[in-house]
Amino acid sequence: MSSLPARRQAAPAIEEAALAQRLLDGFRRLSADPAGGVTRPAWSPQETACHAMLAEAGEAHGLRRHVDAVGNLWLAPPGLDDRPAMASGSHLDSVPQGGNYDGAAGAVAGLVCALRAARDGLPLRAVALRGEESPWFGAPYVGSRAAFGALDAAELATPRRDSGRSLADHLAAEGFSPAAAGAGVPLPEVQRTTMFWELHIEQGPVLVDRELPAAAVGAVRGHIRFPRARCTGEAGHSGVVPRHLRRDPAMAVSELLMDLDGLWARSLQEGVDLVVTAGMMATEAEVSAPTRIPGELIFSLDIRSADAATLDGMRSFLARRCSDIGRARGVTFDLGRRVEAAPILLDEDGRLAIEAALPEPHSMVSGAGHDAAEFARRGIPAAMVFVRNRHGSHNPREAMEIADLMHGIEALYAAIRARAG
Amino acid sequence: MSSLPARRQAAPAIEEAALAQRLLDGFRRLSADPAGGVTRPAWSPQETACHAMLAEAGEAHGLRRHVDAVGNLWLAPPGLDDRPAMASGSHLDSVPQGGNYDGAAGAVAGLVCALRAARDGLPLRAVALRGEESPWFGAPYVGSRAAFGALDAAELATPRRDSGRSLADHLAAEGFSPAAAGAGVPLPEVQRTTMFWELHIEQGPVLVDRELPAAAVGAVRGHIRFPRARCTGEAGHSGVVPRHLRRDPAMAVSELLMDLDGLWARSLQEGVDLVVTAGMMATEAEVSAPTRIPGELIFSLDIRSADAATLDGMRSFLARRCSDIGRARGVTFDLGRRVEAAPILLDEDGRLAIEAALPEPHSMVSGAGHDAAEFARRGIPAAMVFVRNRHGSHNPREAMEIADLMHGIEALYAAIRARAG
Repeated sequence: MSSLPARRQAAPAIEEAALAQRLLDGFRRLSADPAGGVTRPAWSPQETACHAMLAEAGEAHGLRRHVDAVGNLWLAPPGLDDRPAMASGSHLDSVPQGGNYDGAAGAVAGLVCALRAARDGLPLRAVALRGEESPWFGAPYVGSRAAFGALDAAELATPRRDSGRSLADHLAAEGFSPAAAGAGVPLPEVQRTTMFWELHIEQGPVLVDRELPAAAVGAVRGHIRFPRARCTGEAGHSGVVPRHLRRDPAMAVSELLMDLDGLWARSLQEGVDLVVTAGMMATEAEVSAPTRIPGELIFSLDIRSADAATLDGMRSFLARRCSDIGRARGVTFDLGRRVEAAPILLDEDGRLAIEAALPEPHSMVSGAGHDAAEFARRGIPAAMVFVRNRHGSHNPREAMEIADLMHGIEALYAAIRARAG
Repeated sequence: MSSLPARRQAAPAIEEAALAQRLLDGFRRLSADPAGGVTRPAWSPQETACHAMLAEAGEAHGLRRHVDAVGNLWLAPPGLDDRPAMASGSHLDSVPQGGNYDGAAGAVAGLVCALRAARDGLPLRAVALRGEESPWFGAPYVGSRAAFGALDAAELATPRRDSGRSLADHLAAEGFSPAAAGAGVPLPEVQRTTMFWELHIEQGPVLVDRELPAAAVGAVRGHIRFPRARCTGEAGHSGVVPRHLRRDPAMAVSELLMDLDGLWARSLQEGVDLVVTAGMMATEAEVSAPTRIPGELIFSLDIRSADAATLDGMRSFLARRCSDIGRARGVTFDLGRRVEAAPILLDEDGRLAIEAALPEPHSMVSGAGHDAAEFARRGIPAAMVFVRNRHGSHNPREAMEIADLMHGIEALYAAIRARAG
């Protein structure tokens, strides 16, 4: 591997933080939404402009830009050419009116790591992926999956929520190949990627709560999700139906949720990873009233765990409790469409190397999906580091400190170097 | 008391059932709603037509009609004149697209009892009250309360939901006196009423479940009602917020409902009367989603008991649990506006007399309010009998058998005779 010119060797930490800040500020300027936050739709001019700014920064420091057939940006030093190498990066799109750091922080980290690797002669490319956020085409990781050639015809025909034009149209409009995105084989750029390293802001409150700047990520939770479950009982006058003659879906769903909550609490005591959410609950909008026993309750369930056996156990627990509660309370549960995803284990050596390089070693699981999980699921080892971030993600109040980002980059690069060595 | 002519003495039971059937069929014809069921708005031409049909039936059998200053119909034999007497009856309005028996069955029973009383020389008037149902002017027992002179200016100005015209307008349009309805003193017709006897269809499923044709009513449940309570937590990503950092209002409200349900079950084991209903539950309509921890849950609570001390206990239980759950789960309960009504004890001797005269003696409480409770609350002893009815009330599927009605009338009249004797 060729080394870079000597001018790249000066005071890296300070320069890197300034570079990161400048890029993140630039992305924000390029995609500020008048309604608040940033909006960088997948395969949009705004996303392309952010890719271009990242590429120019890489080129200014001696890397070469290469854009694959579906629009993902790869940055590598001249000597790396087409040889197998690791890659580090994340996506550059955002949700509508989203925050500036979800994805972008990891793309910047990928560039910083690639600059260090070029300096140190380690085989690493930076990558900025396209369209990771699900609002645009109704599904996540579209850029990663396109790079694996894994999109099907239906997905390529899906309209983008803002433009109404299909994914294939948007790919073509930005100069890319819908055929490659659906070819069924990974692009050459992916085929020569030996491992994927991703930095991402934490989307939850754990690191803020624990007062840690960053943590290694061991796995991405899988889920069993019921977007629209229904519990049906019998409507009645709230004053006149005695308890033993009621068929009350509000009480039945409450009992189910408390059963799940109780199991959740017990599982945590046993060290089992689990989260349970009923995001939606609604009695019949038109006819529900304070003096009427509801006839049905629509609700959702999202059960996630990093452990596949736990999800299996939750599946059968849920079936058993719906049956038992239904019988005891005279109601019927119809859980409706089920959406499932298996947990994804990330690279264990990668996790340990990242954890060991942190100021305070800590590992956690990711409750949300990420490009790294998509790489891992498709057979390319992947590792992740989370960086502390306030106020959650997907909203304009995302707040990441550059100092925390640099802690994450330090740990990520230490692990990359360890793996390369 | 003068006795009636001899022609009123023939085969009463058969004739009474036919009369009841004919009147109920007539009411249905006069108020059939093209959209289903019957619609007899308070102080409407349909309600007035039903009053007229009842009056004509009374007159055909020797009673005299008298309409008070607010539109309630009183039927009495000639000799009773203005003397103190008991009264029996119910209301003749219905809810929109309601059933034919709620109210009307009791008005018919009042006529039948008055005819028997006239024959037997007992002091009893039949009464058909106006506007008992709350949909029309947003409050119940308007006809009874008008007869007590108890309506205030705000209530008299309330628009009827279908016409948009005020209660005062409707009273005047049918030839009655808004001033009398709000005079603050009972009308003379009420002042000379010594006791009120009401037959009503049961609005719940208890008699059907117990296979009983009728039951005496000992009390009308009071209530503590929160029509729009709010539990506020913190919205978040369903996958990434661990249990101990959640502030989930869906779980919190479910815990509250299960606490109330558990207390309810224990209360019943101790013979304490109670019903608990959460008629409305709704996460935020615009932003709730299966993968989002809800930020708030709007819900209603309706807690009823025939026992005032039980309601007091529920009030403090609720406050304590909201506080404890709020603290444990990081949420805030704002129960909002509270609507309360005290339980009403009906006349105990009346209840015992009705119960003793039933084929299978049984007493129960009423979960819904009735004109009888309004009379009792204002100091006139009142007693009630419930008649079996399928499919609840306030809907076109109300189903009462004439044979059951006659069982109820027999018991009611036996109690009236006992009280008069």
